Amino acid sequence: MQAVLLDEHGPRVVDHREPTASHEIAVVRVHLAGICNTDLELLKGYMGFRGVLGHEFVGTVIEGPENWRGERVVGEINFGCGRCSVCTQGMRRHCPNRRVLGILDADGAFAERVAVPVVNLHRVADDVPDEAAVFSEPLAAAFEILDQVHVDVTTECVVLGDGKLGLLVAQVLFQAGAKVLAVGKHPSKLALLERLGLRTVASSDWDRSAVDLVVEATGTAAGFQAAIAATRPRGTLVLKSTVAEHVAHDLTPLVIHEITVVGSRCGRFAPALDALKHRQVDVQSLISHRFNLRDGLRALEVAASPGVLKVLLEP
Amino acid sequence: MQAVLLDEHGPRVVDHREPTASHEIAVVRVHLAGICNTDLELLKGYMGFRGVLGHEFVGTVIEGPENWRGERVVGEINFGCGRCSVCTQGMRRHCPNRRVLGILDADGAFAERVAVPVVNLHRVADDVPDEAAVFSEPLAAAFEILDQVHVDVTTECVVLGDGKLGLLVAQVLFQAGAKVLAVGKHPSKLALLERLGLRTVASSDWDRSAVDLVVEATGTAAGFQAAIAATRPRGTLVLKSTVAEHVAHDLTPLVIHEITVVGSRCGRFAPALDALKHRQVDVQSLISHRFNLRDGLRALEVAASPGVLKVLLEP
Repeated sequence: MQAVLLDEHGPRVVDHREPTASHEIAVVRVHLAGICNTDLELLKGYMGFRGVLGHEFVGTVIEGPENWRGERVVGEINFGCGRCSVCTQGMRRHCPNRRVLGILDADGAFAERVAVPVVNLHRVADDVPDEAAVFSEPLAAAFEILDQVHVDVTTECVVLGDGKLGLLVAQVLFQAGAKVLAVGKHPSKLALLERLGLRTVASSDWDRSAVDLVVEATGTAAGFQAAIAATRPRGTLVLKSTVAEHVAHDLTPLVIHEITVVGSRCGRFAPALDALKHRQVDVQSLISHRFNLRDGLRALEVAASPGVLKVLLEP
Repeated sequence: MQAVLLDEHGPRVVDHREPTASHEIAVVRVHLAGICNTDLELLKGYMGFRGVLGHEFVGTVIEGPENWRGERVVGEINFGCGRCSVCTQGMRRHCPNRRVLGILDADGAFAERVAVPVVNLHRVADDVPDEAAVFSEPLAAAFEILDQVHVDVTTECVVLGDGKLGLLVAQVLFQAGAKVLAVGKHPSKLALLERLGLRTVASSDWDRSAVDLVVEATGTAAGFQAAIAATRPRGTLVLKSTVAEHVAHDLTPLVIHEITVVGSRCGRFAPALDALKHRQVDVQSLISHRFNLRDGLRALEVAASPGVLKVLLEP
């Protein structure tokens, strides 16, 4: 089957071995897959990943347990062992033995077909189109913040970064009732949020007044320092960006202002699927381009271009 | 009066102007003052402080409001304005207009006499000797962790750093019931904790297994990365060190493991004074040297030497 493989020569479209099903593993025919910033970081060497890229997908189960066959599904990306103390404490997403779809020891979804443990699958409601369902994984990552941090109508939030994840995070905090200010560099991206009623500001015009909750979703190493400066004393900074680059940061403001930094990665799919079903967030406006899987390299290039939001791949 | 002044020429012992009292400000005759790592960082340029050093002290009120005169006191070091929204929300220690004793815009306690707002003063119980009371400020900083993070008998803690603050933090977590492992480089310092029943290990022999709660109290920029590695997924890292130096850190483990970093600075004095009164912590074993104030420069040199714990100054 066709797949976008990353190896020591970089990414390329190849004819790859077929995934195989079992009583615990489903093979999913991919309808659509989404390119995430993490994929672009993987290309730069993050995690040292080798294999088929891609962890955002929607598709149909074609092989595996009877009760899953024919179902339209999305899939959580962390494949926990299910047996260790971390898994049995309910933290499968943090299993030390985990594989991660298209990120760590598991071939991903930039392919015609992908293997996913059935325990990771979620059925997609009929009224959620593929073009929305393919956002389940990044939207779950945005909802993860609500599982970690208390947010209510009094919470003053700044979301730093108007990339794909920043736009989802801003919407999730907004629909949770918080007072959100989205800070970004791209007027066209911020305009998507303004149409939904959110306040936005260009980073060049931002007054940097410190607020209760700052979400760092710039996807850059430099974003952390800006986020620290925007967090009020005893406020909370949610760190979302994973970047291959390491830069020197001044951590003393964390101590002086007693700021809490909350690292935040993947989330439960249930709140994301619920929000998609009830159209509480607008994800389809984030789609910039759609490519056939055979043009996967071009799609990755375009996804890395300034101003581009979600790029979808279609096998 | 005699005082240890830091200016553009470095620290020196000078004849300094007398502090003055008012109906809100007491003048305290200093019995003993303690040298803190922060003082040593100030000498390296941290905060750009110019003035009389010193923020750990015990003394007797000699001028100021009638009801305070003659009282033996210790003093909280953050002088909030008392009027801004931060102060009126009960966060005087974080007042944006604050002065900080011997650290920011306020002459400190390495002097014969020091001016302190009476709102910052705490009476010392008769059965607490000066040599214990002088630890109130760093001990309050250790107790601050219990105000920030839930700790109980199930909490597995690692305290990184066997300096003055590390030894206090380890004791505070231990008396709160937590399972504490103190990691340090100095057998003689760790021995102080072992005598109290705490588990300790030399950093060279430490197996680095990840635990629920890690307190970074190494006083070094490098300690943060070691602390990240020692924190379990979804665990908490309390950051105590403020250092002038900035180094590059890999922050991705914070995101991947969803670690919470809690910046922690000064604390309420009440729990510290209570613990001193009831001898729940041993502070006097931490006293390495005692110098007359006129030998303040020598005292600072000694305080910066390897293996030395608390150095006291006596006017």
